[in-house]
Amino acid sequence: MTTGARAVDIVRFDHDGHAAVQDVAATEEPLELRLGGQPFVVIMRTPGADLHLATGFLLSEQLIREPDDVSAMRYCTDADGRDTDNVLNIWLHGAASVRAQTALASRRHVTANSACGVCGRRSIDDLMEGSHRVDSELVVSRQIIEQLPAALRSVQQTFDQTGGLHAAALFDAAGTRLGFAEDVGRHNAVDKVIGEAFASGRLPLSNHILFVSGRTSFEIVQKAVVAGLPIVAAVSAPSSLAIELAREANLTLLGFVRGHSFNIYSVATRVTE
Amino acid sequence: MTTGARAVDIVRFDHDGHAAVQDVAATEEPLELRLGGQPFVVIMRTPGADLHLATGFLLSEQLIREPDDVSAMRYCTDADGRDTDNVLNIWLHGAASVRAQTALASRRHVTANSACGVCGRRSIDDLMEGSHRVDSELVVSRQIIEQLPAALRSVQQTFDQTGGLHAAALFDAAGTRLGFAEDVGRHNAVDKVIGEAFASGRLPLSNHILFVSGRTSFEIVQKAVVAGLPIVAAVSAPSSLAIELAREANLTLLGFVRGHSFNIYSVATRVTE
Repeated sequence: MTTGARAVDIVRFDHDGHAAVQDVAATEEPLELRLGGQPFVVIMRTPGADLHLATGFLLSEQLIREPDDVSAMRYCTDADGRDTDNVLNIWLHGAASVRAQTALASRRHVTANSACGVCGRRSIDDLMEGSHRVDSELVVSRQIIEQLPAALRSVQQTFDQTGGLHAAALFDAAGTRLGFAEDVGRHNAVDKVIGEAFASGRLPLSNHILFVSGRTSFEIVQKAVVAGLPIVAAVSAPSSLAIELAREANLTLLGFVRGHSFNIYSVATRVTE
Repeated sequence: MTTGARAVDIVRFDHDGHAAVQDVAATEEPLELRLGGQPFVVIMRTPGADLHLATGFLLSEQLIREPDDVSAMRYCTDADGRDTDNVLNIWLHGAASVRAQTALASRRHVTANSACGVCGRRSIDDLMEGSHRVDSELVVSRQIIEQLPAALRSVQQTFDQTGGLHAAALFDAAGTRLGFAEDVGRHNAVDKVIGEAFASGRLPLSNHILFVSGRTSFEIVQKAVVAGLPIVAAVSAPSSLAIELAREANLTLLGFVRGHSFNIYSVATRVTE
């Protein structure tokens, strides 16, 4: 197995019933970049090629323009002098250093790829800290889960036209669709459906299911937890950190919901045969 | 057509040759959220349900906790008093207003879904401003393009295990793969391959092709333009703003590269039969 993936225990539902099996999930962890010692951005990433990631990110932000603009890059060391994995110190040179100071001083809101609500929280423990715990008695049958993909696709108008949009939808315990949104950003689609429910005073969504068209990241689970959702189901794979948060928050996380099969990554007791 | 999609003129290559046709792309535009008049975050999104998006985003950031925390939301008006589409003013109430002030004052780096290098630039014109123009004489045959998906999949180890990672790879004009990266974030995969090329002094990449496994957003094209790449090809769809920037920057943008067919959204002259 590469460092980009982790073994996870799951419950697999298919034609023949269900069974506990082992699967593999893509690793997702936060990387904080510090410029001259000051926190600059937190990027949710798969560990590996971190120095290239940091270099490409700073180039794209146009803080560096030549290879020589980077004086040094080193992981932070802990109290025992060992490298930590998720904080990278970067020292820039000359004009690049001045640009970095300006960026830091001007409070420019530097953004992180697919990262929401994670900045300033650099370790996985920090990310988990203060997360709510979902409180719900919801139990649904596998038939309800198996109907979700068709129910979502039937309203995905823009996707049908463009092939280019993510979708998210809310369902009640009977599988009736209550909310729906499409967006180029999958986090946006989730924010849209949860935002609508929140504005109409329907939170916590303790008896509802969130279904998303793509992959599930840490932040999608985080948004669901804040909304009190007990079940998040997706057409594609969850990341390692999405699974970790779901377990910590007592949320049932499903992936690869396709046809008569799906995987349950956490709190499998909410789904019955 | 919904507001979530736009008509675009493309060149379609398939078994029978190629032809100019009309297609539809998912709309991507920036939305700036302002709290009490101060810029807070720029979200790259598909227009529609903007108030729900803003509500869900602020909830997820835990700035609002009850529907009453939001006093008002209004689009900025222009000099003639008309609503603008891409700047939303939000006024919060009581404790939520205090939390917003704290968030703004603490320079918390609030992140935007799938948004990189766009913050503080709120209009599409602002986003386009200062973008480089790709300078390259590169022309490739369709055979080179058609080989890219298989060349990428052959090295996507972690995807094979998890189904959960995006990939990006650099190819030269002969179709030889030079760099490769996988990540839960597709922007990260692009940063990793471009960062590596930059660090080895290989920029501008004027004779290279960037191939990505997923969809193409504005920011992926932006990263390619900074690196001097003349051709970006993808397995899936580009957004409207990715196409717009590619045209502005003289970059050849391809999508739906599958089997013997693909679409060219800009500068089609770089690909021959």
